Amino acid sequence: MPSTTPPFAGTRVLVTGGAGFIGSNLAIALVERGATVRVVDAMLPGYGGNLFNLEPVKGRVAVEVADIRDAQAMARAVKDVEIVFHLAGQMDHVLSLTDPFPDIDINIRGTTVLMEALKHHNPGARVVYTGTRGEYGSADSLPVAEDAPTNPRGLHEISNLAAAKIIEMYGHVHGIKGTMLRLSNIYGPRGQMRHSRYGVVNWFVRLALDGATIPVFGDGTILRDFLYVDDCVEAILLAAGSDAAVGTLLNVGGGEPTTFREVAETLSSIAGARWAFAPFSAERKAQEPGDFYSDVSKIRRLLGWQPQTPLKTGLERTLAYYRESRARYW
Amino acid sequence: MPSTTPPFAGTRVLVTGGAGFIGSNLAIALVERGATVRVVDAMLPGYGGNLFNLEPVKGRVAVEVADIRDAQAMARAVKDVEIVFHLAGQMDHVLSLTDPFPDIDINIRGTTVLMEALKHHNPGARVVYTGTRGEYGSADSLPVAEDAPTNPRGLHEISNLAAAKIIEMYGHVHGIKGTMLRLSNIYGPRGQMRHSRYGVVNWFVRLALDGATIPVFGDGTILRDFLYVDDCVEAILLAAGSDAAVGTLLNVGGGEPTTFREVAETLSSIAGARWAFAPFSAERKAQEPGDFYSDVSKIRRLLGWQPQTPLKTGLERTLAYYRESRARYW
Repeated sequence: MPSTTPPFAGTRVLVTGGAGFIGSNLAIALVERGATVRVVDAMLPGYGGNLFNLEPVKGRVAVEVADIRDAQAMARAVKDVEIVFHLAGQMDHVLSLTDPFPDIDINIRGTTVLMEALKHHNPGARVVYTGTRGEYGSADSLPVAEDAPTNPRGLHEISNLAAAKIIEMYGHVHGIKGTMLRLSNIYGPRGQMRHSRYGVVNWFVRLALDGATIPVFGDGTILRDFLYVDDCVEAILLAAGSDAAVGTLLNVGGGEPTTFREVAETLSSIAGARWAFAPFSAERKAQEPGDFYSDVSKIRRLLGWQPQTPLKTGLERTLAYYRESRARYW
Repeated sequence: MPSTTPPFAGTRVLVTGGAGFIGSNLAIALVERGATVRVVDAMLPGYGGNLFNLEPVKGRVAVEVADIRDAQAMARAVKDVEIVFHLAGQMDHVLSLTDPFPDIDINIRGTTVLMEALKHHNPGARVVYTGTRGEYGSADSLPVAEDAPTNPRGLHEISNLAAAKIIEMYGHVHGIKGTMLRLSNIYGPRGQMRHSRYGVVNWFVRLALDGATIPVFGDGTILRDFLYVDDCVEAILLAAGSDAAVGTLLNVGGGEPTTFREVAETLSSIAGARWAFAPFSAERKAQEPGDFYSDVSKIRRLLGWQPQTPLKTGLERTLAYYRESRARYW
């Protein structure tokens, strides 16, 4: 796969949310490929931003603490870049059930502030947006392709859907070239580990490293397509480098459906983790969409991308990362 | 059709945007059916609110000038009502191309403020939301049914789609019973007439009454399903009174596809209006989705509703209304 990655040497890029989980992995990959990388991150407390995430490229990325809702900051941030990777956002779907306004303000209004900045100051830049498979809601049939109905089950997912539609619209109406991705459950190094409200696999990893019991909800047979973050970064880079991806919506998922039980069992076998079945809370149940895995044939066909990292390998790398750097994340 | 309308005698209802075009017609119909009607309208300059719209029910509706973005005002407004008709919104899709923020703030955030008020203060109330056929964007095939893809072409239409998804979500997650309507091109008495950025048919009526030439864009053969406002009100009332409509999305359209040229010709025959072909402006072209008419078989099946008013009759009534009350609208 690395052979298919477009060259980024000398390319000027902006990564919003670049101190966060996927954003920082992306920023590091871009620096390694020779890009000139500018990161903006609002570093909101409780969110995913962690400056330690960018340690491997310290001094080789320009980091500005700025909020995508700040029009003046965004006007500066988009200046002279060729690609904008838009990853900043409110990511906590549980929070969105009790307080819907951060999603509206950050994910919808903030995305619009960013797109307005591009429209006025740099309409020629490419945009890649990372939405969520939650934009689909429950799967009517499996695997879920890009033309499936969108019935998002929470404000967070609605805000991602709206943001993607907004970026698509700036393409139609204002000619800004965007690609809208819908990511499935991403896991790996550099995700925040202080609370359990982001990725479930990373939370399982924390519990394993803490020697705590991993709760597997229901009977553990619910299916997801978990994807290792490096594979996700590869998909984002390919999307940014491809004309075929302009104006297009693409699923980025693990391809192979896997049960939560299988994740727990793998962590048990490679790290001695304990796990046990646990009942669904009412709140969790209301948000639980049942089996879900993405059809990734469109991105394979268009960009030649497919997941490379088996679950066991990805979990081993994730465990190793957090064993090493635990003090920066716990 | 009136025989199928549910009785509203003694029912306490709230109409947001109730001084606007459809909202005021709805409020009047509700008063006539014996409902206790509370109207809130922000009366924003340049929007559709006009207190003269409520003249026929003066003293028989409680009108509060309040904004749906005001949480305290909404907490008061939803108190003790059994049905909330949510019609308030930013309606100008041309404005949304240059300034996307009013749509986000009013239509998305405002709708959420209203739904939070219901969640906290009156979760048992029914909600009926009036979105737009613009949520679909261009028609992939005709007529357009409720399960068609949604590819809205402007921020205004995206904001309506998001608002509908939000109301649907408050149903799933918080148990609030909502019905989401998608209205096609509504025309008739009580629409604002100061600018041309709302309904095209009402604007044609103004031009006819002004003795100005009606511009028919392109070759005039683009199809729409125009619907007279009384028929629209009937659909809204039926939706509010039906358990079958809870959690459901319903098209409300004219049923019969009609060309813009036919509208102009009808106005010519009944009011001596002049009309002429006119070229599309670039901006109008970018927003023009081509032929569009809704499939209204779902609402017919579920609620027994169908359009009753022929175009000629609707235009005659509209002309008569504005001839009479022109000074209040021009």
